[in-house]
Amino acid sequence: MTDNFTWNRKDFLSIEDLSKDELETIFAYADQFKQTLDRTQKKLPTLRGKTILNLFMEPSTRTKVAFEIAAKRLSADVITITGDASSLSKGESLRDTAKNIAALNADVIITRNSHAGSAYYLSKIVDIPVINAGDGAHEHPTQALLDCFTLRDHFGDLKGLNVTILGDILFSRVARSNIWALQKLGASVTLAGPATLVPKKFEEFGVKVHHDVETALKNSDAVMLLRIQHERQSSIHFPSLGEYTKMFGLNKKRAALLKPEAIILHPGPVNRGVEIDSQLADSEKSVILKQATHGIVCRMAVLFLCATAAANNLMNKISANE
Amino acid sequence: MTDNFTWNRKDFLSIEDLSKDELETIFAYADQFKQTLDRTQKKLPTLRGKTILNLFMEPSTRTKVAFEIAAKRLSADVITITGDASSLSKGESLRDTAKNIAALNADVIITRNSHAGSAYYLSKIVDIPVINAGDGAHEHPTQALLDCFTLRDHFGDLKGLNVTILGDILFSRVARSNIWALQKLGASVTLAGPATLVPKKFEEFGVKVHHDVETALKNSDAVMLLRIQHERQSSIHFPSLGEYTKMFGLNKKRAALLKPEAIILHPGPVNRGVEIDSQLADSEKSVILKQATHGIVCRMAVLFLCATAAANNLMNKISANE
Amino acid sequence: MTDNFTWNRKDFLSIEDLSKDELETIFAYADQFKQTLDRTQKKLPTLRGKTILNLFMEPSTRTKVAFEIAAKRLSADVITITGDASSLSKGESLRDTAKNIAALNADVIITRNSHAGSAYYLSKIVDIPVINAGDGAHEHPTQALLDCFTLRDHFGDLKGLNVTILGDILFSRVARSNIWALQKLGASVTLAGPATLVPKKFEEFGVKVHHDVETALKNSDAVMLLRIQHERQSSIHFPSLGEYTKMFGLNKKRAALLKPEAIILHPGPVNRGVEIDSQLADSEKSVILKQATHGIVCRMAVLFLCATAAANNLMNKISANE
Repeated sequence: MTDNFTWNRKDFLSIEDLSKDELETIFAYADQFKQTLDRTQKKLPTLRGKTILNLFMEPSTRTKVAFEIAAKRLSADVITITGDASSLSKGESLRDTAKNIAALNADVIITRNSHAGSAYYLSKIVDIPVINAGDGAHEHPTQALLDCFTLRDHFGDLKGLNVTILGDILFSRVARSNIWALQKLGASVTLAGPATLVPKKFEEFGVKVHHDVETALKNSDAVMLLRIQHERQSSIHFPSLGEYTKMFGLNKKRAALLKPEAIILHPGPVNRGVEIDSQLADSEKSVILKQATHGIVCRMAVLFLCATAAANNLMNKISANE
Repeated sequence: MTDNFTWNRKDFLSIEDLSKDELETIFAYADQFKQTLDRTQKKLPTLRGKTILNLFMEPSTRTKVAFEIAAKRLSADVITITGDASSLSKGESLRDTAKNIAALNADVIITRNSHAGSAYYLSKIVDIPVINAGDGAHEHPTQALLDCFTLRDHFGDLKGLNVTILGDILFSRVARSNIWALQKLGASVTLAGPATLVPKKFEEFGVKVHHDVETALKNSDAVMLLRIQHERQSSIHFPSLGEYTKMFGLNKKRAALLKPEAIILHPGPVNRGVEIDSQLADSEKSVILKQATHGIVCRMAVLFLCATAAANNLMNKISANE
Repeated sequence: MTDNFTWNRKDFLSIEDLSKDELETIFAYADQFKQTLDRTQKKLPTLRGKTILNLFMEPSTRTKVAFEIAAKRLSADVITITGDASSLSKGESLRDTAKNIAALNADVIITRNSHAGSAYYLSKIVDIPVINAGDGAHEHPTQALLDCFTLRDHFGDLKGLNVTILGDILFSRVARSNIWALQKLGASVTLAGPATLVPKKFEEFGVKVHHDVETALKNSDAVMLLRIQHERQSSIHFPSLGEYTKMFGLNKKRAALLKPEAIILHPGPVNRGVEIDSQLADSEKSVILKQATHGIVCRMAVLFLCATAAANNLMNKISANE
């Protein structure tokens, strides 16, 4: 375990909040949990007796399932509530819904919501830990954790790496969380994609912005692709999918510009033939399936740290009262 | 534990069926379960190996989740089936659906259904315990349990308390269950609300009926608000929400008519600014969140008593056969 | 346990694949699991720590729930994903969905899908066991297991039994799996129903085909009814439900043609008064509810065998590497 081992937070809300030491602490635990994956008996008794409430007010399958598996591996009970805010609350405010969930004696709330800032808002309302599983276009911090854990798994350290994020940066909470995480961990970040989706103003965050994909990929140690979300982007942002693929899709020719040891990441689901050539997605350079596996262990680490910190705080309160 | 400790029922179907001793027995167990809520290890091994089937044929989030948490705290496995009756059964009768569920080797069925009497009907069909989580406009007995448990928690005893139920009595299974429970436990009940929603004929149940909210609230030890359900009530019952709030909404001026120690209950979700003033809902008088917590322990008690009685009956049958 | 005890398969995909010895192996384990059903403590620690992923891309309640109960009885964790293929995958291929699920560190995938061959296809893609819970009109192998287990439970052995399958054979994966299973276990199979739903070409499978229901039922030891699925069959296949019932419905008069000890099976949900007379469905001849119970133990056996074979293979790989 690192000398700078540290976790004193009630909540896990954003990467922007976290220090490098906190990120390293999460990774150190994720490393340990990773070693349990191949055991016959994978379940750890760590969170036995805890109730974890998965509050998914925005459709999600893989993040929801990954959190469910992570929680169950730690022996917690998981209750999943899905549906849009209105059907859940019958006119009740998010504040009241959250307070009610806490009153049901839950120990942790995992929340996905289409409103940026909703996880932060909830964390101020309830005493129990709140974990952000994606809040609008703001952050998707556990995705950035698993992405960076995957880079760390491959390269040992992110220090000095050149990482290019390619695609729809403007609407992407994944990009936003990764921009913070990569830089905190010492990587240099380049953003690439159509000017409509990758505005120059992102340079304020200390990153490079290129609208020419070849320039962006050259000498990169890794490229993180973002999913082109047909359902969200209108024809205002780019003329057609075919046009996007032609201009910005990752094909073998473009992948050849990356450094020899470079890897390709994608949060999934992959649109084969759109943002990435299908064979390339299955090539040795692709670490897409490793990312899914790392999503389990990184989420186990976050659940463990938040639930344990909460238990310690409770213990401290109890002994202070005695 | 009370001297009159008693539980010999297969099912938990309605408050109307129960004696005062049976209600006290449930509360005595709920008291014990309440003490486990703050433990680090909250899970009890009591129902380990039992399969509890949550059959929710009417939409519900909070009652469903509360039963799920209660069952998991007792280490039972919970399977939840949702959907309206038709999609569940593909033309199959409720009787056949129930018999099939019992044949799947389930140990307890928890049922919510839009038809009054459906829980009673199911209980006659299957040998395993049936717990009523709301049957049409008939009863919602676990809600009355948690409401009365909350009053008992605050006042020690319900004997001699004046409790006013305010709102849509006509369509409310919560009101119906509470009228039985409160009176059995020794409280005097007053019903209040618009004449269209609170018919005088309710006096047959031994309660007072007032259509003047101020008279109803005066000298009350507690007021139980009911949710105004926009979706069910038509304009026949009252002219508008604004009109309802003006005439019957609980505001600070009206709350001042209550006794000094009085408390305010609401089953949730709360329509702030409709049936209750928003600040009042967050005031010290409000025990709304305590109700949610008490819903867990009261449901643990009901699950425990029904499953244990079933296990004892099975043991008796086995020894009788030997 | 049988001398010919054998299970070396990664997957459980179809009855057609299996040998008689493999079927007997499953039944031998199902026998053992059946003895645990009446215990106070029904849960076995066998699959503790395993994660079983229920991937139901076609609507299902009872098969899904039966697998869930079976898995939980073996102490596995169960994650259920429902929804049609498109909503699950957001344009992702089934192949990518499956690979992702395996990457989430799941131990077994149970799959229901409207495409014939989908379970087989998945099994080639992922390293973990795939269990077919129904693939289009191809097979529903666990249904045939529970049906044959029920016959075996009643008759001791299937050898020499005459079994008639009555109804919509053409569209029925249940019929297809049972034709294989019954014959492998030594029974003679007769198919009966309207010529439009029971084509003569089925004789290629070694069965008899009758369009005259009385001839088909005479001297049968068992009749397996199939559900008439209003939603799938058009008026092309038979004129009306009433007409079907008159010509092919099982009524008391027709049931009298069966052998005295004969039993009636139905996979459910039963359309009372359509494919079977309502009183007959509740008569002593009917084993419909036993089938539901046997569905639990047969699925426990399949889960146990596949998960254990996978664990053994893993152990062998590990020791080979040492």
